[in-house]
Amino acid sequence: MDHTFENVAIIGVGLLGGSLGLALKQRGLAARIYGVGRNENSLDTALNLGAIDEASLDIVAAVKDADLVVLCTPAAAVPGQMDTVREACRADAVVTDVASTKQCICEHASATWPTPRRFVGSHPMAGSEKFGPGHANAGLFDGAVTFVERGETVDLDAYETAIRLWESVGSTVVGIEPGQHDEMVARTSHVPHIVASAIAQLVGEGKESGHFIGNGFRDATRIAEGRPELWRDICLTNPTAIEAALADLIERLESVRQGVAEENGGQLESFFAEGVRARRELLDS
Amino acid sequence: MDHTFENVAIIGVGLLGGSLGLALKQRGLAARIYGVGRNENSLDTALNLGAIDEASLDIVAAVKDADLVVLCTPAAAVPGQMDTVREACRADAVVTDVASTKQCICEHASATWPTPRRFVGSHPMAGSEKFGPGHANAGLFDGAVTFVERGETVDLDAYETAIRLWESVGSTVVGIEPGQHDEMVARTSHVPHIVASAIAQLVGEGKESGHFIGNGFRDATRIAEGRPELWRDICLTNPTAIEAALADLIERLESVRQGVAEENGGQLESFFAEGVRARRELLDS
Repeated sequence: MDHTFENVAIIGVGLLGGSLGLALKQRGLAARIYGVGRNENSLDTALNLGAIDEASLDIVAAVKDADLVVLCTPAAAVPGQMDTVREACRADAVVTDVASTKQCICEHASATWPTPRRFVGSHPMAGSEKFGPGHANAGLFDGAVTFVERGETVDLDAYETAIRLWESVGSTVVGIEPGQHDEMVARTSHVPHIVASAIAQLVGEGKESGHFIGNGFRDATRIAEGRPELWRDICLTNPTAIEAALADLIERLESVRQGVAEENGGQLESFFAEGVRARRELLDS
Repeated sequence: MDHTFENVAIIGVGLLGGSLGLALKQRGLAARIYGVGRNENSLDTALNLGAIDEASLDIVAAVKDADLVVLCTPAAAVPGQMDTVREACRADAVVTDVASTKQCICEHASATWPTPRRFVGSHPMAGSEKFGPGHANAGLFDGAVTFVERGETVDLDAYETAIRLWESVGSTVVGIEPGQHDEMVARTSHVPHIVASAIAQLVGEGKESGHFIGNGFRDATRIAEGRPELWRDICLTNPTAIEAALADLIERLESVRQGVAEENGGQLESFFAEGVRARRELLDS
């Protein structure tokens, strides 16, 4: 049988890695999938689900024969693993990742990979507050946007392979420059996450607090349930864009605070009307 | 047939007023419901839905024979309407409202109503980003918490009548002092709403912005879709608590910003972990 990929190595078999394995297997896109993890429980779960064919604790052994390597670990772990993979994999292997921040990872690739490089960064927007291979599902990438790094040092064949990978599991692929990607996700994802966490902490712990929790609060803080170490890593690998977006947000909130203090009804109504308009335009785009 | 209420006047037949009318009618709790509005279209919709029995543009005429008057208009309009109702209604009528801010309204009642007063503030936590009688439904208050003003100047019979009203349409009633109510909702509702609106405006309007909008962003900004004039009024009638909560939030965001700038992984991980813990504790309480 002719597969799109012969040997795929997935490093990290959590929600994203496990779902990718399932999606590739169920569509018959990969002949053999090697899963690598640090944790035997996660590997066993991934094996039992059929997300991977073989489990290993050793990256070097798992990537040796791979034509495709996908790093599915939190952002801060990726550069170190890239070094291990680059030394151990075939020269013609395509290597990609799934981290939510791209500039730091793609810069590391440019600094260390032979040019034109066969490492190309990816970011499937398919996470959730759930994690672990137990939540993996073959449809996770279906209909999700996946960003794929667009850049002059990237090998064209590797770029096209990454696009084929994500399209084959149902994603809509958008090519993007890593710096622009990171500035955008700081505003649409990273800062909203920080804010959701801060709002959850703002309420305090009075015995009666629970009565005040409505659907609005639930929605507004749902993303605060993400894994702390994942979000720490996102902050550590996208500090410039997050700082700028946070500063911008704080300035807007200071301006509302002043409007509230001055009881400036016109300013406040304009602010809320602009929020409605901006959200609708984004969701319609 | 014996009804809990004989003549009910609902001032403002939008989402809340219309739903209250429907809930009372469908449960056979009110013999006759008078709906008052400024807009003939809304009144016609409420009549056609069966939310009210009679429509009027005139508060004075509608409340004359009422044993229960419920003001279902935005917070800033309530004090003026209270004055009209107080002069026009029976001395034994119970008067309440549904606004999201309570101190300003309850202080106005204390200053103007005969003591012990038969005005008692209410706040059913049953709004949504939808509005207008077209979205009214008889189950809107089912399972929702409704706060009812607890205070020394409130007539005990009026307090119990308000409790009976909200319990009869399915609410869980929580008695609360208006100042404490306003401090709590500033943190669980008003500031989250301001922040959702600010985040929607933070993203900007680049052609590619839409690709970056995931479920997290949708959830985190859903409440930004509320009516601008309603939220303006909420800010204007709860300025002290909103200002304090906004200042608290800004301080927390400044601290995260510093943690990001200093790449302080330990501080960032603690911050996110505390957000998860706080949210779970609130939702479990």
